[in-house]
This record gives sequence, structure tokens and C-alpha cells, in this order.
Amino acid sequence: MDRLQQLKERVAEVMDLRHALALLEWDQQTYMPSGGNEARAEQISTLSKIAHQKFTSPEVGQLLEDLAPEMESVPYDSDEAALVRRTKREYDRRTKLPMALVARFARITSLAHETWVHARRESNFAMFAPTLAEIVELEIETAEAYGYLESIYDPLMDGFEPGMKTLQLKQIFAELRDGLVPIVQAIVESPHKVDRRFLGQKFAIQQQEAFSLELLKGIGYDFQRGRQDRTAHPFTTTFSSGDVRVTNRFMEDLMTSSIFSAIHEGGHALYDQGIPPRFDRTPLAFGASFGVHESQSRMWENIVGRNLHFWKFWFPLAQKAFPGQLDDVSVEGFWQTINTVEPSAIRVESDEVTYNLHIMLRFEVEMALLEGKIATKDLPEIWNAKMEEYLGYQVKNDAEGVLQDVHWSGGSFGYFPSYSLGNLLSVQYFTRALEDIPDLYRQFERGEYGGLLTWLHENIHVYGGKYMPAELTEKVIGGPISPQPFLAYLRKKYGEIYGI
Amino acid sequence: MDRLQQLKERVAEVMDLRHALALLEWDQQTYMPSGGNEARAEQISTLSKIAHQKFTSPEVGQLLEDLAPEMESVPYDSDEAALVRRTKREYDRRTKLPMALVARFARITSLAHETWVHARRESNFAMFAPTLAEIVELEIETAEAYGYLESIYDPLMDGFEPGMKTLQLKQIFAELRDGLVPIVQAIVESPHKVDRRFLGQKFAIQQQEAFSLELLKGIGYDFQRGRQDRTAHPFTTTFSSGDVRVTNRFMEDLMTSSIFSAIHEGGHALYDQGIPPRFDRTPLAFGASFGVHESQSRMWENIVGRNLHFWKFWFPLAQKAFPGQLDDVSVEGFWQTINTVEPSAIRVESDEVTYNLHIMLRFEVEMALLEGKIATKDLPEIWNAKMEEYLGYQVKNDAEGVLQDVHWSGGSFGYFPSYSLGNLLSVQYFTRALEDIPDLYRQFERGEYGGLLTWLHENIHVYGGKYMPAELTEKVIGGPISPQPFLAYLRKKYGEIYGI
Repeated sequence: MDRLQQLKERVAEVMDLRHALALLEWDQQTYMPSGGNEARAEQISTLSKIAHQKFTSPEVGQLLEDLAPEMESVPYDSDEAALVRRTKREYDRRTKLPMALVARFARITSLAHETWVHARRESNFAMFAPTLAEIVELEIETAEAYGYLESIYDPLMDGFEPGMKTLQLKQIFAELRDGLVPIVQAIVESPHKVDRRFLGQKFAIQQQEAFSLELLKGIGYDFQRGRQDRTAHPFTTTFSSGDVRVTNRFMEDLMTSSIFSAIHEGGHALYDQGIPPRFDRTPLAFGASFGVHESQSRMWENIVGRNLHFWKFWFPLAQKAFPGQLDDVSVEGFWQTINTVEPSAIRVESDEVTYNLHIMLRFEVEMALLEGKIATKDLPEIWNAKMEEYLGYQVKNDAEGVLQDVHWSGGSFGYFPSYSLGNLLSVQYFTRALEDIPDLYRQFERGEYGGLLTWLHENIHVYGGKYMPAELTEKVIGGPISPQPFLAYLRKKYGEIYGI
Repeated sequence: MDRLQQLKERVAEVMDLRHALALLEWDQQTYMPSGGNEARAEQISTLSKIAHQKFTSPEVGQLLEDLAPEMESVPYDSDEAALVRRTKREYDRRTKLPMALVARFARITSLAHETWVHARRESNFAMFAPTLAEIVELEIETAEAYGYLESIYDPLMDGFEPGMKTLQLKQIFAELRDGLVPIVQAIVESPHKVDRRFLGQKFAIQQQEAFSLELLKGIGYDFQRGRQDRTAHPFTTTFSSGDVRVTNRFMEDLMTSSIFSAIHEGGHALYDQGIPPRFDRTPLAFGASFGVHESQSRMWENIVGRNLHFWKFWFPLAQKAFPGQLDDVSVEGFWQTINTVEPSAIRVESDEVTYNLHIMLRFEVEMALLEGKIATKDLPEIWNAKMEEYLGYQVKNDAEGVLQDVHWSGGSFGYFPSYSLGNLLSVQYFTRALEDIPDLYRQFERGEYGGLLTWLHENIHVYGGKYMPAELTEKVIGGPISPQPFLAYLRKKYGEIYGI
């Protein structure tokens, strides 16, 4: 297995470069002074280029070719076979991209971050539009370089959701929407109104931060191998299995935001902290896909974190964390509040029922941009019209509309569907966990998550990136992804809350 | 000049890699959770290797060779000539190092940081000794690879102080010591005792941090292009002319530490913030040498920051920054306190008079280690004996003795002399500035540093790394480095304070 060792050493260098890149990006979003922006873009561009160059080198190609016959006798489930398989898949993909495109893409999306932050702060889409137009052009160029049979969206989504096709996604979305519309309808028509007055208070940032750290610790996030910092948009980033960081944002007048961001990013981080250290510096040190990753974050955020059992333990702690501010609120009242279904502007703050409509909107906008059916400059109008149509929500300004998400500035076209796929998978996986551990909810009432975490570890985290998402899902639940369990979950939960 | 452009592009990539490395190291010392240590060492090793590989590539050598005749007709003082000159010098140096040694050196010194921090916290040299022994071996191997004629110390010091030789350094140190001994003697025998009681108070960390930020801003540090974070050992690091960061440490029972670290690192940072942005991504985007760099930090820290005129402006602000704690202290009393001469343990906290004795001690220890005359394990004993001999100070434990400095863990053998050279140059440069701007001290009384900063900018910063340190000094003061102006400065200042 001398060749395998050579391959490992080569990809290890690439992984080191990618982790250095991740740090350059983390720093850019956390602590970098604004004066560092231009040089940072060059640094990111150079490292991206070198990482690309090293990964797509003819030597790697030759090693993969030479290893192919050897691998036939190696068990499919072995680390070795998985490593070669995943490397080969990525190699075939990346060798299609010209290096100049990779470097340009990295530089432009790095510069775009500050432009987006600035435009969002000023709530002025026009400031971001030229940059976005440039990014759309790069996305199209990238998609064309990858090549595709059916949809220009396919090769981009494939970077986040290996194996998923636009056609299948559209079917899933159609089925999902058919199920969602009557639920939303019933809730809107329900006479039940949630008392949310306590949310009108201002909650001190420092107290929110302290409570978010308590929550992260509580669900099992290991601070010896991570930390939480502040950014404009919360995210999780991984430099090794020993260094998995989350970020959060704190708004005085929306205390629930930092709570659920902490649990959401904590879910991502528990996945990455749970991937075996022996996969470090290999392409297996990542989850199966971004959708599977979102299944973890959304499971912790929603199925666990918006559950009454969960808050039976945490609500008294929240009352202590915000002295005097939650004394008149009951745990049931709090639970109802955090599960209010209401058409609203911001995806990451939206409820479980309407959330996927936000995603479908983004998917449609991305498709239309990539297919050249709409122009970048018309985006606010199109966005706002769709928000009105799908959610009955009237967008007030660009900051709460088309500028709200970080993804486009980072060149992540094709990412959004992963959120919805994650929502569906989260319920499918959790249902299975509940079959294996019927006691789960009672454990939550005691603030115990070891049962769930061990289950997730043994059934999902431990595999790292060994399997394609569909393979993994088949392994975990014995079937494919489907919207029906998710819809059933919503009907049950919100039926109870809204009496529908 | 097509070849020059090619050379520029090649070195720009190397500079991007070095800046990414600097960020990996900054992060390691500021925010990285301990779990990230092992992987970080691999990342640093890989990037160091790639940077080395790219810089020492035959293509760079060929370009330099081809450019040599072209450069003969280019003015010596031009950017182009300086770029080629400095790149050639570094190329000739670095090509002597085997890549495996570079990678090993980077990995081991990266891992050593945490070991050192831990050992220092526990005040236990034995914990650090095996690592240090390994680093000494690497330093010797490195020096041998570079090669040398007179002293094994030469090639190591040359990395920090281009052109300086051990023989010359020894002469400077001998002359310096001859001048220092009678000054120390006179002060020790002086009946004058400084009242330092106010220093016995505890000063809140948060207030210290706020005041250090005020000071940095006051002397002209640009926070749009920098920031201050906390580390075990203060340092300055530069990612581009637009991103020059300082660090500091805060001790409740030693408020002067954070004040003078802020001004010291601020001095370094003003240098790097003052280097023209057109040098970004070239080897000219650094100071002339570490000694010249220290001339800036030590000038701001001591000549400016320990000056009575300086505190006439700042002391009332200090009184406000630490409410009630400095009310009974006069500005003259404060000034005397911060200029107390007293043999003490910690180099960075030591006074201007004894400081260089700390450096000579380190230089001798490094020499002896490199020449194999002493063993690593005997260091505490040797260190403590020398402290007793040179300073009459009895070291209490390893933390305040041999473990106090970060440098050895980072593999910076040969660096310490730069501090003393910087001390000498600081007085020589400042004396010249004072000739040009006789009003300087009165400007300090008004909290104005623009005069000095502009002078430093025009005479030193603006050249970046275009000149060798000796060339630059000749340009600035029309003569070579010398201990005499520094000694005269000490005699005058401390004569006044101690009536000697």
C-alpha cells in the first residue's frame, strides 16, 4: 500500500492548505480589521490556487489510476476504499476547472464579503449588485467548466450534495410544498394566538453570549476543541477534529436568535467534533454532504431545541441567565413563543413550517440567475414579489430581503437546497433514533443528550465522508430521503400547538 | 522588465503563504483552542515547506540570474534594484536549507509553543527541556546548512540582522558593558530611593486594556489597519500594510507592563503601518532588520514613553482611566517610578539601564548552547548564576528565569541581540530627529506625535526593506551603529533622576 501512503501524503498537504484557507476566512469574518481586506483576498486566491494545483496534479491522477485495480480487492466499507473513492470523485470534478478560474473565484468572493456586509448594513442592494453580477458570471463559468446533462444547477449543487440532481430536488420540493401549504393555511386560520410580549424586551448582549455558551456546553460541544466568536452571519468552521469553531450574532431585541444559532451551529460542530481523528488531513474528515450536515444542525436546533422537553430543563436556567426578564413567562408559554408560525422576512429566524418556503424561493432565484432568465439588478423586485406570493410577507428593505444571506457573496450557489434536505433528513434520522432510544425525551428533560449524541455518533458521525449522502441515509434508516416524515412531524407538533 | 514582473509574481505567492503562516501563528497564540495544536503544527509545517519550495525554485534562481545584467543599469536606490537585491540575498540564503529541515523546524517549533506556555505556567523547566534540546539541535543543523566562517552564531543572527557579525557584536557588547557597569554601580549606591508604593495596588484588567488602546490610538496606531489581542507574550505581526496587529498581556499587579508593552508593540506597528503599500507582497514589505525594528519599538517605549514630557499629557488620562488609584501620585512621582533602575528578573519589564545585561546573558547562553559547551538540562543553573553575576539578582523560579521568553520555543536563536542593537539605534535615530525638530518634547507635552512619526516615516519607514541595516543607519545619521550615544543618553537621564 505504498501508493496509498503517497496519495495520503499528497492530499494531506491539500487539506492543510484548505484548513489554512478556512482560518483566513474565519479571521476575515471575526477579527480582521477592514484594512486587511485587499491583501486577504490575494492570500485566499493564492492558497486556493496552490491547493487546486496540488490536488489536481498529474501525480495524484496517476496514483488514483494505479490504485484502482488494487482497490478492487479492498472492502467497500474500508477507510482505504472510501478514501480513494472520495478522492477520485473530487479529483474528477476539480480537474475540470481551470486554475485561473479557481484563483479568480477565490479572490472575488473574498473581496465580496466586505461589500456584502457593507451593503447589508446600509440596506442598499445597488452597492452589492455589480459584485453579485460578477459572481453569477463566475458561477455560470464554473458550471459550464464542470459540464452537465440536464441542468446548469446540477454541477453546482453537486459540490454540496453529491449525487443529488435538480430534477429529483424539484420533485422533493413539489411534494414538500403540497404538504406545507395546507399546514400554513390551517395555522394562519387558527384562532390561537401566541403571547409573545416578553420578546419585546431588550436582552443584554453579554447575558445572551453567556447563555449561548452554557447551551453549547450543555448539548455536548467540547470547548477544548472549539470556541464561539461573533460574526455578521453565524457559521461553523473546522480546522481539524481538535478545532471546530462556531460563531454567533447577538441582537438585543431578538434574544431567541442567538439561542437557536448556538444550538444550530452546535449541531454542525458536534458532527465535526465526532468525526474520528484518524480521518484528519483526508477528504473523509468532512460530513457526507452539506445536507447531512444540516440534518444535524437542524435536528439540534428544531427537533431538540424547540421541544418542550428540552425547555423543561433549560427554561429555569434561562430565567437565571436573564434575571427578572422571564419571571412572568411559563415554560409552556416560552415553548409556544419559540414555535410561533408566522410569515417573516429572515430565513434563519423563521419557523420550521415556513422555513422551506424561504429555501424554495432562493433555489428558484438561483436557477433563474444561472439560466440568464433574470438580471441581477432586478433581484430586489423579484425577491420581494416572491416573498409576497409564497409567504404573504411584504419585505421592508433590502437588508431583510435579498441581502440577508451571506451565501452568494461567498460564491455558494447551489448550497441552499441542502438546508431543506437537512430538514427532511433530520426528522427521518431522529425518528429512527427515537425507535432505538424510546427514553430520549425524558433524557432531554434531565438535560441529558449523551443518548442522542452517542446514537448520532455511531450511526452518522463515525463515518465522516465515507459514504455518499444517499448511501448513508439508506444505512441509517433503510430508505431514501422523503418529505413525508417531515410533514407528519409538522402536522403533529403544530397540530398540538395551534389545535389544528 | 517582463522578467521582473515574473519574479514579482513568484515572490508575491510566497509572501501570501508567509502571511497565511503568520495568521496560523497569531491564531495559535490568541484564540486557538488547545485541541487544535497538533493539526496546526502540520498546517504550519506544510505551508512553510511550500513557501520554501516556491521561493527556492530553480525558476526563481534563473530569473535572478537573468535579471542580474539588466539590474546593472538600474539605479541602486530604485525599488526594482532593491527588490532584486533583497530577493537574491534571501534566495542565496534559503537555497542552502534542505526542505525536510524547513518542514521539521516549522512543525517542532509550532508544537513547542504550547509546551513552553505550559512549562512556564507550571514554572517547570524540565517539562520544556527535551523540546528545547531538540530545537537546539535543529538550530545547529540549520547553522551548519547555511555555513559560516567565524562563528556558528553568524548565520543565525544574519536572519534577523543582515550583515552583522558575531565579532562586531561582541565588540559592541564589550563597549556597552564597560559603559553600563559604572552607571548601574552609581545608581545602586545612590541614596535616592523612588517611592513606588502605588504600584502595589491591583489595577483592573479591563481598565488596563482600555487605557492601552487609548495609548495606541494616541501615538498614531491606526485601528482601521490593526487591532490588539491578548497573548502570553506580547508581539506584533503583519499580514499586509493594511493589517498590522499587536498583542498585549495584562497583569492586575503590574499595570506598567501593559502600558509599556502597548507602546513598544505600537512602535513596531507604526513602522509596519508606515511601509508603503506598493511594497505589499514583496520582500521589501518588512523593515531593514529586526534591530531596526526594535529601534522603533524601543524608541517609542523608552525615549518617548518613559519621558516626563510624554506623561505630562498622559498622566491625567491615566488618573481618569484608573479612578481613585493614582490620585495621590504626582506626574513626577509616576515618571520616577517608571524609570526605577533595579536589578530584576524579567527582561521585558526591566529598566533601560539593566535591560542590555539581560540580552548579553541570553546571547552568551545561546552561543554556549550552539557551540555545545553547555547542556540544555543545566540551563536553569547557568541562567541563575549569570543573573546573580550580572545583575545581582537571585532568580526565584524557572518562570521568572530561563522560561520567561517565547523566543527559543519559536526557534529564534540569534534574535536577542537585535533588541540591544535596537536600543543603541533608537538613541542615535532619535538624536537626529531632535536635531531636525527641536520642538519635539513640547509636542509630546501636547500629546502630539505627528512630528516624530512623520520624521520616522520619511527617514526610515518609507524605505521598507530596501537597505541593509548598516546602509540605512548611514543614510539616517551619517555614521555607523555605536553604543556611545545610548550611554550618554542614560548618563544624562538617570543622572537627573538619581542625582549621580
